Amino acid sequence: MAVGLLVKNIGLLATPTGSSARRGAQQGEITLLQDAYVAMNPKGNILAVGTGPVPPELAEAEEVLDARKSLVTPGLVDAHTHLVFGGWREHELALKLHGVPYLDILAQGGGILSTVRMTRAASQEELAEKAGEALAAMLALGTTSCEAKSGYGLNWETERKQLLAVQELNRRQPVELTPTFLGAHALPEEYRDNRQEYVRLVCQEMIPQVAEEKLARFCDVFCETGVFTAEETEQILTAGLRHGLKAKVHADEIDPIGGSQLAGRLPAISAEHLICTPDAGIASMAEGGTVAVLLPATSFYLDKAFARARDMMAAGVPVAVATDFNPGSCPCLSLHTAMNLACYKYRMTPEEVLTAVTLNGAAAIGRAGEIGSLEPGKQGDLVIWNAPNLDFIFYRFGDNLVRQVVKKGRRVVG
Amino acid sequence: MAVGLLVKNIGLLATPTGSSARRGAQQGEITLLQDAYVAMNPKGNILAVGTGPVPPELAEAEEVLDARKSLVTPGLVDAHTHLVFGGWREHELALKLHGVPYLDILAQGGGILSTVRMTRAASQEELAEKAGEALAAMLALGTTSCEAKSGYGLNWETERKQLLAVQELNRRQPVELTPTFLGAHALPEEYRDNRQEYVRLVCQEMIPQVAEEKLARFCDVFCETGVFTAEETEQILTAGLRHGLKAKVHADEIDPIGGSQLAGRLPAISAEHLICTPDAGIASMAEGGTVAVLLPATSFYLDKAFARARDMMAAGVPVAVATDFNPGSCPCLSLHTAMNLACYKYRMTPEEVLTAVTLNGAAAIGRAGEIGSLEPGKQGDLVIWNAPNLDFIFYRFGDNLVRQVVKKGRRVVG
Repeated sequence: MAVGLLVKNIGLLATPTGSSARRGAQQGEITLLQDAYVAMNPKGNILAVGTGPVPPELAEAEEVLDARKSLVTPGLVDAHTHLVFGGWREHELALKLHGVPYLDILAQGGGILSTVRMTRAASQEELAEKAGEALAAMLALGTTSCEAKSGYGLNWETERKQLLAVQELNRRQPVELTPTFLGAHALPEEYRDNRQEYVRLVCQEMIPQVAEEKLARFCDVFCETGVFTAEETEQILTAGLRHGLKAKVHADEIDPIGGSQLAGRLPAISAEHLICTPDAGIASMAEGGTVAVLLPATSFYLDKAFARARDMMAAGVPVAVATDFNPGSCPCLSLHTAMNLACYKYRMTPEEVLTAVTLNGAAAIGRAGEIGSLEPGKQGDLVIWNAPNLDFIFYRFGDNLVRQVVKKGRRVVG
Repeated sequence: MAVGLLVKNIGLLATPTGSSARRGAQQGEITLLQDAYVAMNPKGNILAVGTGPVPPELAEAEEVLDARKSLVTPGLVDAHTHLVFGGWREHELALKLHGVPYLDILAQGGGILSTVRMTRAASQEELAEKAGEALAAMLALGTTSCEAKSGYGLNWETERKQLLAVQELNRRQPVELTPTFLGAHALPEEYRDNRQEYVRLVCQEMIPQVAEEKLARFCDVFCETGVFTAEETEQILTAGLRHGLKAKVHADEIDPIGGSQLAGRLPAISAEHLICTPDAGIASMAEGGTVAVLLPATSFYLDKAFARARDMMAAGVPVAVATDFNPGSCPCLSLHTAMNLACYKYRMTPEEVLTAVTLNGAAAIGRAGEIGSLEPGKQGDLVIWNAPNLDFIFYRFGDNLVRQVVKKGRRVVG
């Protein structure tokens, strides 16, 4: 049997199993193998996962990685990022600390609309280069796959430019990106007095073009007071579904205006944020099999409430945890930080969070059949940690415990 | 003029100034120089800090570092760590998440007394090696000087072993360590029914021996309900002062039993934790010039209240921020994480926090004359950040933004 990479001497291999989202009690039921190995074929797919001595037919590998008795997990999947954007907004932090309300910052030309201006002004190459730096940092922190939303263009030219930058990044660096079209991220200044026309533009012009050029797999809408109503959200997501773009929705971040109920009813593949989700929304997502993508680093940075993760898991909603990396509400690209917060603030167990950032993250981006667990047939994406066990990476916080990263059977970090 | 290292092309140099703690409005009044340089002599002390073109007499340096228009700050000073300990306690996290109270963990043989057992069982070399790994991570995160407390021995042999490990680490790696004797960190099991005898042992046997062997500069006591009373604390710290060990005190972490009032009255050089400090304690520290060493990562990890940093600054108490790195209540060695938390949770400004982790941290360990700011005559300890300005390193969180670190005029990271 031709073996490409063999990872041996694994102290503890921790992985969920399966090719769909894990929910309810299953979210915390992971496989733990002591004294384990993982063998991959030369194409980078997993051939075998086992314990004890490596069988002779697997031992003759092109490359052998010694995990030195450490913890190995699947590569991390970050299911919600706004990866591609122009500029940063660090000076808003000082304003915020001085008590300036977000709406005042927005009125002064700051906030999301300043990111829109900077993203419009940047070239595709500038956007790709900037996002590429962030991806290198994410990879070093263990993220091997990640979702990337558009939504800082709010016009066709710039939305397309963001999505083309994602395509370009998929060609030139190892973190696999799954693009989401988020043209309905905010109402652009030009349409302030003509919101229906912008909704029409998204539904009838942008979405068909995104599908035509195969620029995205998903369509997402920011369903929120002052942004898009539940009715507009449904209109846009339905247009996306007609064109083969599966639905995602930013729901219940500030006000519970029906986003999570809609998500379960469509059903959307995922609903995201979910800070103030009502019981009816949780029930709807459970019914629809919608993955709840929770973003604890955003709650932390904005000093907001934390999502009802335990209630969602108890109701049978599969929970994923992601960073929400973006220049405004969450300038954090570390999924490890989000994992720590999910543990400390959602009171999720290490096992539940591991599933949330691997298999359930993969399910939220429609890739649970290929990534998110260490099993034969899946892609060889894994992280070797400077840690002896799973609890350790949740207990320690603030520094990077990733020692080595393997992507599609190739060592890409360490 | 013989120049060792020249750091040039600094986009923004941000530093407090002076050789003593900054308090009140001064805490936030830092020097900001654009287009700057720092020149050091071959011994590693700062010769000149300036802006604009580098003068010819400074340009001929042995080594030149190009800061590429980035932010430069003084090296970070972590004024409160329990750096040297045996083992870790990651499994207590899961117990905590399942709602097991700390006192039950302690009764099951966990908690601080399990660290005492593991520290007693480790050799000096094992302790030094383990702490050395932590120091390497801290250095990569920008910490160039750090305090290190004993206190996991609770008998002379092991307290001495911890302090000797600190001495050894000062010889073999670049982060400068300042040792603190914390024999009164907890009541050892052997003295459960004879606390007066342990206090006597600390005062009459350990302290004189620490002074005799020059093992520590400071003496610290955990003044807390169930640990040491304010009276016992005063007795121990006074014994330390008689032997030339300046006083520090763990005060008001859980209950306000008089630690901060005592600290100002002695005066102690610093009082640390201060989560529930009353107005009288703040007034006393201001009067005594005691530095408040605040530990936001501990509040974060234990989900406790955050110290009254703004009230302390308003009252004229100099505030430092440190990690409290230890295996129980704060398994975080990143001062950057503590800086983010000080900003988000204490509502300190970036300028105030910078002073807190440089000059005021140095003052808390009696070294403000040598480190903590970038000025002629001080040691050449600095950090070059992957950041264009000071706000940026407070806005971004979760990944390491340190690009290069210079210690005593030598490049030690990057």
